[in-house]
Formats: sequence, C-alpha cells, structure tokens
Amino acid sequence: MSQVKAYAAQNATTPLAPWNFSRREPGPHDVQFDILYCGVCHSDLHQIRDEWGGAIFPMVPGHEIVGRVTKVGDKVTRFKAGDLAAVGCLVDSCRHCDPCREGLEQYCENGSSGTYNSLEQDHKTPTYGGYSSMIVTDEAFVLRVSDKLPLPAVAPLLCAGITTYSPLRHWKVGKGHKVGVIGLGGLGHMAVKFAASFGAEVTMLSTSAAKEADARRLGAHKFVLTSDPGQVKSVRGYFDFIIDTVSAPHDYNKVLSMLRVNGVQICVGVPPTPTEVLGFNLIGKRRSIAGSMIGGIPETQEMLDYCAEHNIVSDVEVIDIKDINEAYERMLKGDVRYRFVIDMATL
Amino acid sequence: MSQVKAYAAQNATTPLAPWNFSRREPGPHDVQFDILYCGVCHSDLHQIRDEWGGAIFPMVPGHEIVGRVTKVGDKVTRFKAGDLAAVGCLVDSCRHCDPCREGLEQYCENGSSGTYNSLEQDHKTPTYGGYSSMIVTDEAFVLRVSDKLPLPAVAPLLCAGITTYSPLRHWKVGKGHKVGVIGLGGLGHMAVKFAASFGAEVTMLSTSAAKEADARRLGAHKFVLTSDPGQVKSVRGYFDFIIDTVSAPHDYNKVLSMLRVNGVQICVGVPPTPTEVLGFNLIGKRRSIAGSMIGGIPETQEMLDYCAEHNIVSDVEVIDIKDINEAYERMLKGDVRYRFVIDMATL
Repeated sequence: MSQVKAYAAQNATTPLAPWNFSRREPGPHDVQFDILYCGVCHSDLHQIRDEWGGAIFPMVPGHEIVGRVTKVGDKVTRFKAGDLAAVGCLVDSCRHCDPCREGLEQYCENGSSGTYNSLEQDHKTPTYGGYSSMIVTDEAFVLRVSDKLPLPAVAPLLCAGITTYSPLRHWKVGKGHKVGVIGLGGLGHMAVKFAASFGAEVTMLSTSAAKEADARRLGAHKFVLTSDPGQVKSVRGYFDFIIDTVSAPHDYNKVLSMLRVNGVQICVGVPPTPTEVLGFNLIGKRRSIAGSMIGGIPETQEMLDYCAEHNIVSDVEVIDIKDINEAYERMLKGDVRYRFVIDMATL
Repeated sequence: MSQVKAYAAQNATTPLAPWNFSRREPGPHDVQFDILYCGVCHSDLHQIRDEWGGAIFPMVPGHEIVGRVTKVGDKVTRFKAGDLAAVGCLVDSCRHCDPCREGLEQYCENGSSGTYNSLEQDHKTPTYGGYSSMIVTDEAFVLRVSDKLPLPAVAPLLCAGITTYSPLRHWKVGKGHKVGVIGLGGLGHMAVKFAASFGAEVTMLSTSAAKEADARRLGAHKFVLTSDPGQVKSVRGYFDFIIDTVSAPHDYNKVLSMLRVNGVQICVGVPPTPTEVLGFNLIGKRRSIAGSMIGGIPETQEMLDYCAEHNIVSDVEVIDIKDINEAYERMLKGDVRYRFVIDMATL
C-alpha cells in the first residue's frame, strides 16, 4: 500500500480538509500516476454535501484527473512511466454486460465504479478521487493525453468535456443543425465549443445578458435571453437540439417550445426535483426529452484525441488546493469562467 | 352546396343529436364521397366536451372515415366515382412549409386543417367530420382503400392505426426489439398488432389482469401487470421502446424504469395535466421520452397498403348512430373491444 496525501470531506457539513489514506500497489493491469491537475466539478459539491444521498465518507472528490505515470503493472501495454495519463468519472465496471461490451461503461447494468464516492468492483472497497497526490487505476480505465495541449485545461475534458461531447456525437449533431445550449457554465461552455467545432449553428440560451459576449467568444453564433418572452418566442420551433446543462429546477415546457419537428432536448444537467412536462409539447412536433450521462471509455479517448487535433480545451482558473472551499462558494454563485482546476503541486 | 345529414354537438354539455349542414360542391381537385363507416375516437369525446379548449360549435365529430366516391373534380387523377376512399384526421395543410414538404402535414408549421373542430386553410370556414352522410375533400388528403379488407374494421386505421404505425416506423421498430405497449384500447390494440407484425417481441403492460388473454390473442408475447411492483421490477431496464397510449395521468417514472439503455418511451396518449419526470431516470440510461401525433398523408397511405397486404384491421363493434351517446359512456368505462364504428347507413 502507498500513502497518499489528499483533501477530504469527513461528513456532509464540514469543509474539505487535508487527509491521508492508502492506495493499493499497482497490480498487473494497473497504472499508477502522480496527479498534476484535478478539475472541480459541480457534482463534487453535490456529493460532499450528500445532496444525492448515499454518500460514503471520508470522501476525496475529483474526477477530472490528469497526471504523469510513475509505475505500471507487468501486463500494462499502453502506458509506461513518464507518460501523461488521465482518469475521468469511472475507474471500473463489470465489463461483461451489454453496455460494457459496447463501450458504454457509464451505463453498466451491474453498476460501474465511480472514481470517488463509490465502490470498487469487489463491492466493498471505497474509491477515492483526484483531490489527491496519486491514483492507481486499471489500464482499461486510464486515458491517453496529448502533450500538445495545456494540461490544466485538459483536466475538465474528463467530465465537462465528455458529458457534452458524447450526446452531440450520439445524436450526430453537425453541419446544418441548429443547436441551443442552456447554461454557460463548465458543461455549457464545452457544449458551445464542441457544437461549433462540429459545424452546427450554435445559440446560447441564457437568463443573463452579461453572458452574451463570452458566449460569442467561445463560438456561439447567436444569443437568446430566455428571461425575455419576446426573444423566446422568436426562436419558437427553431432548434434541432437543445443541450440543457442546467441542474437547477427550470421550465422544460419553455425549452420544448423552442424545438422544431423531431427536436430533442438533451439533458446533461439533472434537477434534483421532478420536472413537469406537458404531453402536448412532445406530441405536437414529435419532440423528445432525453438524458445523457458522461461517456464511455472509448468515446472519452476519442474526445481527447479530437481535442488534441482541433486544439480544444476548457477555459480554466487554476487554484491552490487550500482555496478549494472558497472555490466551491464562488462556483455556487456562478463566479467561475468556466472551471476551477486544482494545481495538485500545492497539496 | 350540398345538404348533408349529420350528428352534431351544439355545445359542450348536451348530447350529440341530428343536425343538417352544407358542404361545398367539389372543386377541380376535390373528391366527394358517401361516408359508409366512421370510427369513434376518444378524442371525439374530448373535443365535443371542449376538454382541450377552443371548441368550435356546432361540432360534427369523426376522423376515421371510409366511404365510396360519388363525384370528383376535373383535375382529380387518383379517384373516380365508385372507388373506395378514406379521410383521416387531416383535410388540408399549408403544403409549403418544411414538414408539409416532407409529408409530415400533421406538424404543419402554419397549422393543418383538422377534419373537424378546425378551420379550412382560408382560416375561417369550419370543418365538419365523419358523423355525416358525405364529405368533400381535396384529393391530396384522400386515401385509397383496398377492397380486400372489411370496411368497418378499416375505418379506425385512419386514426388509431396511423397513430401507432407512424412512431413504430419512425423509430424503426422491428426484429430484435423488445416493445412494451401501455393501455389496451383503440390505440393499444393496434400498437400490439403492428409491433408484432414488424417482428418485435411485444409485451402488454396493463393494470388489469383481465386483459392478458385478449392481449395475447392480438399478438402480444408477454404480459406484465403494472399494478404489481414485483412484475414491474422483473422488467426493469428491459424494453427498447414503450408505446404509451394512456391519456389519463400516470407515472412516467415507472414507465422509464422499464426501459433499457437508449430506450424510448413514445407517448401517443396525452394526459391533460403535466406529468412529473425525474432527470436521473433519463440520464441514467440515456433514455428518452418522445411524443408522436397521428401521421402524415404519405405514411397513412403506406399504412393502409401495409394493412391490406398483411390483413391487419382494427377490432371493432359496429353501432347505429342513434346509439352514439351511449357508446361514449361505454368508451369512458373502457367497455369496447376495441373501437366503436358507426354504420352511417343508420343515419
């Protein structure tokens, strides 16, 4: 076992604080790497505060992890010491159910192992995330990272990136499509970048007029202020797809009204409470509401390779780990453009 | 103008009663036909009681219309006197918007003309439906009917048939798919027949154990009693598609739980009140909730031709028109297997 330095939540109400724990020695299929940067996801906060239930404490958050390999097991073929490596939201899955075999490990029918606040496939060993000095992960769940991109800005691709890339690919979004993006945060700013990169016409849908300039800088072609009924009406029946990144309760019927025939509202943010849907808003134009959750390992690698090729990264603000609790408060206020990333050298 | 005998609602609260009105002389593109049978759709009742709002009285319901051509305009090419003909839910649309050009007239962006309780494309002349002795309709919205099938049992294909055929085709349902059907009524019994005919494994999902034998007779391979939590759990994550024909309020989250990865709940029934959806039930398996409304004219013809080729019709109970109000009461109690059809010779 190796001793690991980390920041952890000991329960749902106290701030994150330093904590030490042990990780396993790398087995034959494992990759061990020093964590250089770890992104700060809104779901980190939901989970350390146990807002989704079932939290496992102590909890070391972090699932946007990039670093440099220090040691590999003797069966590992794709990594060697010195390589860049990354781990996202998953560290294992059953590997034999239909979704796993299709590379959709996030939908594993037997329960995938999340990178933290979860259990290994032995269903008893807790997993600890990337707010820590190093990680040991089975090669099958470790991603390759190009050295062409700035590493801190790569970290958020592992969750915010794949969460928006995956549905855009699944629904084959591209040239000729009109795409709306709701919410300009960690997920939203990546949705704008990817949708624009794929050739779609991108409209930022926001309740804040102050977001317009930034949305356009990120690649949006149009901006609609959704707090203005006249502007919403002007895009009635307009979009082929709306990527809805908002996890606060909001009006799905308003979103649906902006979709054209066969339009799809793709939810990647999840409001904690149920949302009301009026059936006529679905059948009237054969619209759908869909959900999509992160992405599988093969697609995550594809996304990282695509980003390297097209020079796409996240817009980040790098912080010291001692400032993590303050960063959470700023994140809650939407005061981050667009993702905090922890420099793990500050641990 | 021609005088037409009919049954009409004069307002939202009195029973249907005999009423006479005039239809236009057929123009160059019109087909005039004597109505032989007209199906009784649940939406007839919703509309004569103004439960959806905006009702236009007097109202002659009926949009499952079959009959024999008596006269055609001089530009009509596909029909002549003596032919069988049918009209479904639509009698016109703008014909130039994108959906109209794609044969999706039901989603016309400028508002299609419903067969009754609607306005012609002049946006002022009310339309009157099939509880009447004859109808005059533009050839573009008149369907051909095979003489191989029993005519009374063809009538419900014009709404109940196309409403279930269209989404099954749109989502390419067929061999290898597991399809659930919720609700064994006019729509549900056609969904079972079509899904089975397309090669899918069909499961009837019903709150009534008494429906099992009939569901199997209609083509269902399995039956799940949805009022039994154990049976619902046994099909958790099971279906590729669920055709939801229920228009009474019901639990969408229970429906979603039965869908596998990428599964789609296709709503063809519309509850009058909003339905609550929990986001985790969507994103956890990339599920969707979609709506679908009747079908366009080309697909309606395709469906009628498919039915003639595969000997598919609706299960009907033929009634005299004087018994229509009693039939509504029985329909409300679910006491019909599975569609009332009015013999218009009794008018």
